Amino acid sequence: MDLQDAKNRLMTLQKKNAAYEHALDLLFYDGATTAPKKTAENREQTIGILSEEIYEIATGAETVSLLEYLDAHRDELDQKEKRMVELLIKNIREMQKIPMDEYIAYQQLLVESDAVWHEAKEKSDFAMFEPLLEKIVASMKKIAAYCAPEKEPYDYWLNEFEEGMDRERCDAFFETLRAHIVPLIRKVQEKEQLSCQMLLADVPDYKQEKLAYRLMEIIGLDLGHVGLGTTEHPFTASMGSHLDERITTHYRRDNLASSMYSVIHEGGHALYDTGSDRSLAFTVLDCGVSMGVHESQSRFYENILGRNRAFCRYLFPILEELFPEQMEGYDAEDLYKAVNRAEPSLIRTESDELTYCLHVMIRYELEKRVMAGELAVHDLPGEWNRLYKEYLGVDVPDDKRGVLQDSHWSGGMIGYFPTYALGNAYGAQFLRKMKETVDVDADLEKGDFSRINEWNRSRIWQYGSLYKPAVLFEMVTGEEFDPTVYTTYLEEKYCDLYGIEMDA
Amino acid sequence: MDLQDAKNRLMTLQKKNAAYEHALDLLFYDGATTAPKKTAENREQTIGILSEEIYEIATGAETVSLLEYLDAHRDELDQKEKRMVELLIKNIREMQKIPMDEYIAYQQLLVESDAVWHEAKEKSDFAMFEPLLEKIVASMKKIAAYCAPEKEPYDYWLNEFEEGMDRERCDAFFETLRAHIVPLIRKVQEKEQLSCQMLLADVPDYKQEKLAYRLMEIIGLDLGHVGLGTTEHPFTASMGSHLDERITTHYRRDNLASSMYSVIHEGGHALYDTGSDRSLAFTVLDCGVSMGVHESQSRFYENILGRNRAFCRYLFPILEELFPEQMEGYDAEDLYKAVNRAEPSLIRTESDELTYCLHVMIRYELEKRVMAGELAVHDLPGEWNRLYKEYLGVDVPDDKRGVLQDSHWSGGMIGYFPTYALGNAYGAQFLRKMKETVDVDADLEKGDFSRINEWNRSRIWQYGSLYKPAVLFEMVTGEEFDPTVYTTYLEEKYCDLYGIEMDA
Repeated sequence: MDLQDAKNRLMTLQKKNAAYEHALDLLFYDGATTAPKKTAENREQTIGILSEEIYEIATGAETVSLLEYLDAHRDELDQKEKRMVELLIKNIREMQKIPMDEYIAYQQLLVESDAVWHEAKEKSDFAMFEPLLEKIVASMKKIAAYCAPEKEPYDYWLNEFEEGMDRERCDAFFETLRAHIVPLIRKVQEKEQLSCQMLLADVPDYKQEKLAYRLMEIIGLDLGHVGLGTTEHPFTASMGSHLDERITTHYRRDNLASSMYSVIHEGGHALYDTGSDRSLAFTVLDCGVSMGVHESQSRFYENILGRNRAFCRYLFPILEELFPEQMEGYDAEDLYKAVNRAEPSLIRTESDELTYCLHVMIRYELEKRVMAGELAVHDLPGEWNRLYKEYLGVDVPDDKRGVLQDSHWSGGMIGYFPTYALGNAYGAQFLRKMKETVDVDADLEKGDFSRINEWNRSRIWQYGSLYKPAVLFEMVTGEEFDPTVYTTYLEEKYCDLYGIEMDA
Repeated sequence: MDLQDAKNRLMTLQKKNAAYEHALDLLFYDGATTAPKKTAENREQTIGILSEEIYEIATGAETVSLLEYLDAHRDELDQKEKRMVELLIKNIREMQKIPMDEYIAYQQLLVESDAVWHEAKEKSDFAMFEPLLEKIVASMKKIAAYCAPEKEPYDYWLNEFEEGMDRERCDAFFETLRAHIVPLIRKVQEKEQLSCQMLLADVPDYKQEKLAYRLMEIIGLDLGHVGLGTTEHPFTASMGSHLDERITTHYRRDNLASSMYSVIHEGGHALYDTGSDRSLAFTVLDCGVSMGVHESQSRFYENILGRNRAFCRYLFPILEELFPEQMEGYDAEDLYKAVNRAEPSLIRTESDELTYCLHVMIRYELEKRVMAGELAVHDLPGEWNRLYKEYLGVDVPDDKRGVLQDSHWSGGMIGYFPTYALGNAYGAQFLRKMKETVDVDADLEKGDFSRINEWNRSRIWQYGSLYKPAVLFEMVTGEEFDPTVYTTYLEEKYCDLYGIEMDA
C-alpha cells in the first residue's frame, strides 16, 4: 500500500459509510415523519441488516489495516486526514469492543422503542414504555462497560455527547446555573405576569406551515438543501452529508409559538450542519463536532436571536400579514413579551428561556440516578413528578406531559440533555464575542442574518468536527468557558422584561 | 451444504436483498416526495454505492453457489421455493451479463435524470431533458443487448414489464382496441357532451387530502401499512416488503377528480401489494407478479369500480359533506357523468376511460421507433405532437403538457406503457368473472368493498409473484385473454352514457 493509495481508500471508506448513514438516517426520519404506523417491524429488520453491514465494513480486516497504516504515517497526513483517522479509529475501537450481535440488537431495540414510545405517549401509558426503557438502560450500561470499563456508565455517555464532559463538571455547571436562575425566577414571580394571549390563537396547520417556510428563509437556510417535515417531537437529521438536511416541526392549534420556535431551533442545527465546508461532505468530519456546540447554535437562533426584541419588531409585521385576524390589536412589543413570558411549566420544549435549564436539570438528576442503579426505571414517573413539583412548583397531570414527553430516552440518548444547557451557556459567550464586530440588534431589526451567519460560518460551522469542542470554543471566544456569562445575560434580559432592579 | 441449511440461507439472502431494496425504494420515494430540490447529487451517490453492494451480493460466489445447489435440488423444493430460485437465478444471470460499472452508472443515471426531468417539466424545456433521455435509451438498448442478444431491445423490455409480451402481440392487441375504440369515440363526439363543471371547483390541498384519506379507507386499505405522500407524478412504492407501502397523489386546484382518481388508482396497486400472503414478505415473490397484472388492479379500482354509477351514488354524499359549497346544486348522477365525460385531451393520467388507450398507443408507437433507432430522441416532441393531433385531434401547446408529462422515461421504464392498456383489458375479464359470484353494483352502492377485495385477494393478491402472469390469468378467469371483453365493456358503458344505440 502506498500513501496516496491509502488516502484515496480513506475517502472511499468514508463515502461508503456516508451512504449507509444516509440510508439509516432516512429510515429513521421516515419512521418519525411519514411512515404508516404499523411499519416499525419492517423498518427494524432493514435497520438491523444494514447495521450489520456497517459493522462489518467498520470492523473488517481491510478497514482496520488501512487505518493502522494511516495512523503509522500520521505525520504525513494533513490536518483533516489526521482528524479523520483519529475519529475513525476511536469509532472502530469502540465497535470492536461491542459484540456484533449486541450492536445489531441495540439498533433494532431503538427502532422498536421509538414506535412504542410514540404510542405510549399518545396513550399516556408509561407502563407500556417501561420494559423498553429498561432494556435501553441495560444496553447503554453494557455498551459503556465494553467501551470504557474504567468509567461509570453515565460519565461514558456524557462524554459521548460532549467530549470532555463528566458528572463532576456537569454538577458544577448546573450548580452555577441553579445559584443564579432560581433566585431570578423567584423575583420574576413576584412581578406582574406578561401576557401570552396572542400566541394562543387557533391557526390551522397549513397556515403555520407557511410561516415555517418563511422563517427558514429568514434565518438563511437554503431550501434547496434543507427540507421540512412534521413529527411528534421536532428534530434535525442529516441525510448522510450536510448536502441534504431535514428539520421537523409540530403544529399546535393552541400555541403559535410552539412550531415557530421549533423551526428556528431546528433551523439553527441545520445552519450549523449545512455550513460545513464542502470538502467535508461524505467524511466523518461533516456536520458539527458535538451536541453541546450543536445546541449552542440551535438555542442561539431560537432564543438569543429568535426571542430578541429587535427580531420581534421584524417578525410581528410578518405574523400580521399571515394571520391578520389573530394579530389584531397587538404589536411587536406584545410579541416580545409573549414569547418571553417566564413561567414554570410542564413541557421542556415549550418552556421559556429562563426556566428551561431547570427542565434539563431534572432530567440530568434522573438519568444520573438511573444509570448509577440508584433509581429503578419503574420509579421514574414518580420521581419525575416529585422533582417537577420541587424545582418548578408544578403538578404533572399525566405521563404524556411528564416522563413520556421527550423522545430522547427511546432513542438511546441518555446523557444528551445536559448539552442543551451547555449550548445555552456557550451561546451567550459567542454572542458577547459576536457583538464586538456585528451590530446584532440592528441586523435583527431588519431581518438580516447575513453578517450573523457569516460570523458563525467562518468561526464554527465550516470546521465540522475538525476541532474538539473545547479547542473550537477557545478559538471562537479566546476565553475559558464561563457559565456566568449566560446567567448574566438572563439576569439582564429578565430584569428588563419584568421591571426588576438588578442587584449591585 | 445440506438442503435445510441451503433453504435457510435462501431466506436470509432474500431478507438481505429486501433490506437493500427498502433503502433504495425509500431513497427514490423520498426524492419524489419530500426531499429538498438540490439534493439529487447526494442521493445519487448513495444509490450508486448501495447498488454496488446489491450487485456484489447478487453476483457473489456465495450467492451463485447457493442458487446452483438449490437448482440442482429443485425436486426437493416446495412450490414457493422453486419459484424463488427460478426468479433469483434469472435476476443473477441478467446482472452477470451487465458489467458492474454500467449497472451502477445506470442506477445513478436514473436518479440524475429524475431530478432533471422534474425541472425540465416545470420549465417545459425538453432540450434540458434530451441528453439524459438519450443516455437512458442508449443504456436500455445496451442492457437489452447484454441480457437478450437474440431479441430486439424493445421486445426485451416489453417482456421485462409483462412476461410473455413482445411487439407482435402488442401490435395485435392495440389493433383490436383501435378497431373498437376509434369508431366509438367518433359516435360519442356526435352526441351532446357531458358536463364536468362540478369537478372544476377550487378546493384547497388540505381539504383534498382529507378526501384522499377517506377514499383510502373506503376502498379497504389498511392505513397502518399504507401511507400517502404528495408528488409531481403519482406512483406507488413498496418499502422492501408489502408491510410498508406508500401511495402518492398530486392535488390540483382546478380539477377535483385528479387527486381522487390518482388515490384510487394507486390504492389499487397498494391493495394488490399489501394483499400478498404474509409468508411472502421479504422474498422475491412479494408484491405482485407483473406490471400488466398490477395495472389490472389499479385501473380496476380507478375505473371499473371508481367510475361506476353505483359507486358515484355512494361517493356523492361524501363529497357533499366535505365540500358543501362546491357540490351545491349537483347530484350523484351529475358526478357519474362528470367523471366519465369522454373527450380527447392532452394528459394521459387525467384522461377518461374511453380515450385513455389512445394515449398509451401514442407512447407505444414512439417507444417502438426510438428503441429501433427509427426515431431520434431529439425528434420525440415533434412526433409526439403530430400523433396527438392524428390520434386525438388535439394540439399540444407545450412539452410540459406533451412529451414531458410522464415520469416513466426518466425512470428507465420504456416498455411500461402497454401494461396500462393490458391492465384495462385484464380487468374487464376479471370483472365479468367476479360478477358471477359478487353483486358488484349492490356492494359499491353501499361503499362495501369487502367481498370485492376478498375475491381479488383470494384469487390474485395473495399469490404475489408465485405464478406467471398468463398462468394466473387463466387460473382467475378460466379463459384465454380476449381484449374484446374490454371493448364490449366500453361500448356498453359509453353507449348508455351518451345515449348511443348499440350496433347489432
